[in-house]
Amino acid sequence: MSTPLCIFDTTLRDGTQGEGISLTAEDKVKIALKLDALGVHYIEGGNPGSNNKDIEFFRRIRELKLQAKLTAFGSTRRKNSTCEQDINLKHLTESGAQAATLVGKSWDFHVHTALQTTLDENLAMIYESLAFVKNSGMEALFDAEHFFDGYKANPEYALAALAKAKAAGAAWIVLCDTNGGTLPGEISEIVSRVVREIDAPIGIHTHNDCELAVANTLAAITAGARQIQGTINGYGERCGNANLCSILPTLQLKMGYTCVGNEQLKSLTSVARYVSEIANVIMPVNQPYVGNAAFAHKGGIHVSAIMKDSKTYEHIEPQLVGNKQRVLVSELAGQSNILSKAQEMGLDVNPEGMKSREVIDRIKDLEHQGYQFEGADASLELLLRDAYGGAVQTFTVDSFKIMVEKTAGQMITEAIVKITVAGEQVYTVAEGNGPVNALDNALRKALVQFYPGIREIHLSDYKVRVLDEKDATAAKVRVLIESTDFKDTWSTVGVSSNVIEASWEALIDSIRYALLGMVKDEFEPEFTGGIHGLVNH
Amino acid sequence: MSTPLCIFDTTLRDGTQGEGISLTAEDKVKIALKLDALGVHYIEGGNPGSNNKDIEFFRRIRELKLQAKLTAFGSTRRKNSTCEQDINLKHLTESGAQAATLVGKSWDFHVHTALQTTLDENLAMIYESLAFVKNSGMEALFDAEHFFDGYKANPEYALAALAKAKAAGAAWIVLCDTNGGTLPGEISEIVSRVVREIDAPIGIHTHNDCELAVANTLAAITAGARQIQGTINGYGERCGNANLCSILPTLQLKMGYTCVGNEQLKSLTSVARYVSEIANVIMPVNQPYVGNAAFAHKGGIHVSAIMKDSKTYEHIEPQLVGNKQRVLVSELAGQSNILSKAQEMGLDVNPEGMKSREVIDRIKDLEHQGYQFEGADASLELLLRDAYGGAVQTFTVDSFKIMVEKTAGQMITEAIVKITVAGEQVYTVAEGNGPVNALDNALRKALVQFYPGIREIHLSDYKVRVLDEKDATAAKVRVLIESTDFKDTWSTVGVSSNVIEASWEALIDSIRYALLGMVKDEFEPEFTGGIHGLVNH
Repeated sequence: MSTPLCIFDTTLRDGTQGEGISLTAEDKVKIALKLDALGVHYIEGGNPGSNNKDIEFFRRIRELKLQAKLTAFGSTRRKNSTCEQDINLKHLTESGAQAATLVGKSWDFHVHTALQTTLDENLAMIYESLAFVKNSGMEALFDAEHFFDGYKANPEYALAALAKAKAAGAAWIVLCDTNGGTLPGEISEIVSRVVREIDAPIGIHTHNDCELAVANTLAAITAGARQIQGTINGYGERCGNANLCSILPTLQLKMGYTCVGNEQLKSLTSVARYVSEIANVIMPVNQPYVGNAAFAHKGGIHVSAIMKDSKTYEHIEPQLVGNKQRVLVSELAGQSNILSKAQEMGLDVNPEGMKSREVIDRIKDLEHQGYQFEGADASLELLLRDAYGGAVQTFTVDSFKIMVEKTAGQMITEAIVKITVAGEQVYTVAEGNGPVNALDNALRKALVQFYPGIREIHLSDYKVRVLDEKDATAAKVRVLIESTDFKDTWSTVGVSSNVIEASWEALIDSIRYALLGMVKDEFEPEFTGGIHGLVNH
Repeated sequence: MSTPLCIFDTTLRDGTQGEGISLTAEDKVKIALKLDALGVHYIEGGNPGSNNKDIEFFRRIRELKLQAKLTAFGSTRRKNSTCEQDINLKHLTESGAQAATLVGKSWDFHVHTALQTTLDENLAMIYESLAFVKNSGMEALFDAEHFFDGYKANPEYALAALAKAKAAGAAWIVLCDTNGGTLPGEISEIVSRVVREIDAPIGIHTHNDCELAVANTLAAITAGARQIQGTINGYGERCGNANLCSILPTLQLKMGYTCVGNEQLKSLTSVARYVSEIANVIMPVNQPYVGNAAFAHKGGIHVSAIMKDSKTYEHIEPQLVGNKQRVLVSELAGQSNILSKAQEMGLDVNPEGMKSREVIDRIKDLEHQGYQFEGADASLELLLRDAYGGAVQTFTVDSFKIMVEKTAGQMITEAIVKITVAGEQVYTVAEGNGPVNALDNALRKALVQFYPGIREIHLSDYKVRVLDEKDATAAKVRVLIESTDFKDTWSTVGVSSNVIEASWEALIDSIRYALLGMVKDEFEPEFTGGIHGLVNH
């Protein structure tokens, strides 16, 4: 029998304290629904006492009847006052949330310096505030802010703060390493003592300032804590909170605890990427378990070993967290990676032949110029098809022209495109919201009469990266375009010192790749080989 | 007396196995010089047996006479062969490096599955290869690949591999958690046993697949290991290697070990950012110790507390690792952050006044539109100066026009700018490497006769972010521009659905900000308030 743990998600509250993270009420509703499906037990939605956006979030979310307990965050009452007079506590109890987390001081230094009150008054603030919330009919949780620093400075006082919270009827007492400076050995020792002395369910809330938030959480659980407070992708103030995306699989797959269902755990990668998209924060490619490179193999020796047995270089099966294995192409990789890519596509490849040598040299040369095929599988597929056969000529570009003009506050962008399709020259002009959008529009206008299916193609992401930052606006840039036809998604790359030319290159690849699928479907049913073979692998 | 530890940096070898990381020989030389100045003891430069780039690196770096021991990486010899016949070992011993790390198998499963040889032959490969390297006059280190997985599967065989390495004269025996799947408690227990049984200096090499590489390294050191293998910023295969930027300060500032000098530790942030720039990988803003947000405070309560005493929300003094405190502006922050920014600039601010309310509403509104002032201090400074007085009118923009044309492989980009400076209309045209570069050139051409100092201004970074990725090339984009005059660096922001307009906005802010300093220096010596007050804080 594995021990069940309680998962308390604070992405929507502490997570939004991270630099660059800002969520609307609508964003929060979307994320809360995903968290609920993932199976977390508490969703801390925000601080209804601090802003109207959070009040609106609570109003909307309570209609949706989540499985998880909806939780509002606030502080203990103001000093030398009463709970009844405290406007923030009033908002908290009126939020409609089922539970409330109250943060209070447990470090004597903070009582003196930040609150500027007496140790006794702080204990009264803790007791009265938790009792007030509980009397309002909500479940009350106590976040003991800076508990570990407080314990190290004055253990008796820190424990007295917890005892007050228990006396007031707190359902959970949560030990916070607010500044993120505590080490795993200290966490172990201190949590063990708290579990022995305080007869209440104990939680852990850590921050990542020493890159130890995950280890500290695991140490606390081993020492007897039973609730974990953390965020998706580890978002949070400064260096972030404990990352639930790393903690859940380790506890569940390696340490024998139960956090969420095994089927729910398989949605972890998609939840992590969804939240990163809504929060509009790029997910680090190397993020453990859920990152795009978490099971990506680049070294040639590694690649040849995982082809024999994945376990040789993978600590878990990627599918258990909804992720997948990838083989990267790069100058370090040697031929085995490229070979495996081309074979996935069903191309006729002789690994020892001249052609293979040329292809590898060409890829190395392009990488040297700044191309990166690791994130542009469709451009790589076109390159391999062009080399080994398997590509289809769909159109050629003769010229293009762009005009952007701003006068009297008005902005006009036009693009003119001249291409040849099936021996016929087509000349179109279109407007757009920017030069690349205008080019995209003009190009589609030219192609749609030949390939009506192009209407379904849609650019879903556009990224620009300066390659040589020393010389910014004159530097070489790499453009990555992600496209979708609502079934598949593919990425293409372009490099140039001119952002328009780099974008154009990626755009042409994106459309050539899309047409490859249409040509196959509509005109050449006998066409062999896995078109779109690299995508969705 | 604190215990000295040996720091083995493998950024240039294992670090380059990370997705998206590719270093030229020249890049490697630059990074090696920085690592040497930081005071690491070993610099593993690459694998001279696998590619010419690494051979070139070793040739160039050995002329520079580093303090650190230059180390080359390779594998034990091929099975059923001799060291003398092994071309990779030959390259290794001819590399000119002082030390060599040989990786060898210690997990029986890998011997059978990846090497496909016998357990005895693998032990012979370890012994003979290390002895061969040592006989060539180099120091030999043994990386026991998958040691922890190997120990858990077959402890006797894993320990036998280490004993062979010791018998062959390895100077260090390094225990590798190659797949990154081991937990800190297991590391503690296994390293303790190795230290008891193998009488040789022991090292630790961990990977971050469970987000535990740092914790695992610390656990190994506590258990008696004395060498740490890791990389700057944790770069490396899949989820990366142990991050030296987190490990060094924790060991040295919190655990009482000596890794590098205290003065050298103060260069850690600049080394981390330098390596990230050379590697052309964006550093996560929330990276522990060295990230831009590691000591950034966003929550209003946190900000008001750190104004009383930094220790309230900072686990160490940021200066100890060369980082600095920052206060972020955001809708969560409340007035205290904005107030503190404006006061830093010496502006006359009444926090309770109508004006302050308007400014905060304006910032909230702009943030809502997609502006982000956290990374654009100079745009924020201009906004605050425009509101509170303290800005200077330098020029106004009447119109601009851009033409981009590609025909017959030729690409031409021109920009025309019409501005008014000191009552005079100036009309200029310039070419560029892209539309923004052309605009920048035309604008400078118009301004240089009035402000000759503008020649010193130089754009150092240009970033484009799509805000609504659902509708890529027609979506709203945010442009961030970083500029420098070789003393100061400042950042500006622009937002529009047209990338040209957003770039133009950020460009105008960048130049207005630069001129503010020049106007002050050249024309208005009595001008008060900290121009460039926010920069370099």
